[in-house]
Amino acid sequence: MKLHGYFRSSASYRVRIALNLKGLSADHLPHHLRKGEQRDPAYLAINPQGLVPTLQDGGGATLTQSLAIIEWLDETHPEPPLLPGDPLQRAKIRAFAQVIACDTHPVQNLKVLARLRELGHGDATVTEWAAWANREGLAACEALITHESGPFCFGVSPTLADLCLVPQLANARRFGVDLAAYPRLLRAEAAAKNLAAFADAAPERQPDAE
Amino acid sequence: MKLHGYFRSSASYRVRIALNLKGLSADHLPHHLRKGEQRDPAYLAINPQGLVPTLQDGGGATLTQSLAIIEWLDETHPEPPLLPGDPLQRAKIRAFAQVIACDTHPVQNLKVLARLRELGHGDATVTEWAAWANREGLAACEALITHESGPFCFGVSPTLADLCLVPQLANARRFGVDLAAYPRLLRAEAAAKNLAAFADAAPERQPDAE
Repeated sequence: MKLHGYFRSSASYRVRIALNLKGLSADHLPHHLRKGEQRDPAYLAINPQGLVPTLQDGGGATLTQSLAIIEWLDETHPEPPLLPGDPLQRAKIRAFAQVIACDTHPVQNLKVLARLRELGHGDATVTEWAAWANREGLAACEALITHESGPFCFGVSPTLADLCLVPQLANARRFGVDLAAYPRLLRAEAAAKNLAAFADAAPERQPDAE
Repeated sequence: MKLHGYFRSSASYRVRIALNLKGLSADHLPHHLRKGEQRDPAYLAINPQGLVPTLQDGGGATLTQSLAIIEWLDETHPEPPLLPGDPLQRAKIRAFAQVIACDTHPVQNLKVLARLRELGHGDATVTEWAAWANREGLAACEALITHESGPFCFGVSPTLADLCLVPQLANARRFGVDLAAYPRLLRAEAAAKNLAAFADAAPERQPDAE
């Protein structure tokens, strides 16, 4: 398999964790987002959004969108499961993941922040916008799992929720968000970071890290 | 079941279509987003994001996030299926849905547009921001299904992809987007709108429509 990504992309980071948990290896093909390499015509031919990640499997299939890729990995390589069997629990975990993947990350991604700069906003306003998006999302996530026993977001092993949480917390720190308000999220992050699958997927461990 | 929603919310619209396709009825509980009713403490207690939709089933379960709700409906009420059995095809349909639900709709939702106004931008800039988000997302969606035979996004019956597409096209029109560039999407929309499940879910058919 080939994973098109970028060390700092939190959506790529989610897929790297999934591959590691499943014990799958992939060739990592970096696309430097700040240099615009994701808009190369050869890349747009496989991912018309010009976003990362894209996963190409050995059989010629091309998969885009991190959550779709992770659910495909979970369906084709079921062990260890990233979603449980119970439909209601699956829905709760997917909802948590979507708070991050739909309502938080896209509102603070590079493309949106670049557009704010085009509208004339400077560093302080752009960073505060990104911090706001993170605070809104993380506060909802904290509420969703406050009463979950843990130590992971949902139970004693990592799920799709943790795969989304850990990269998002890295973003939040980059934008200067005070994370003290989210003790349950930090507890889940600590449990996850004890696992090599998470630690090895971290941005600073990737070959394209700067 | 009870569906907390808003007639014009495209995420609520997705779930309304799913309920109709499954032949399920629900009490519709409107929350007027422009009046801020979604921030009522009683509502925040069941949906800490203060977003719609939220689905409450008869057994006391509370589900949030439209895609998670729809997958739960599909898992608990399998006929007619909104995702096929083949993992690769499921991944392609989910990716299409996520282009809309992650990268398009949240960037143009009420909350983000309100924040742009707080930054001092007027109607023209705010509308152009929303139109831009729609154009970016729809162009990617068009590319993803150009070679799919249809008439729906993926095949001869509606899937999760169509449930996301039809409400997003309604948003795009509201923001003045010229849809002529997306002929394949318009063909899928026309097929969907022939079905009562889609027509009955339309914003203008809801009791809270203005």
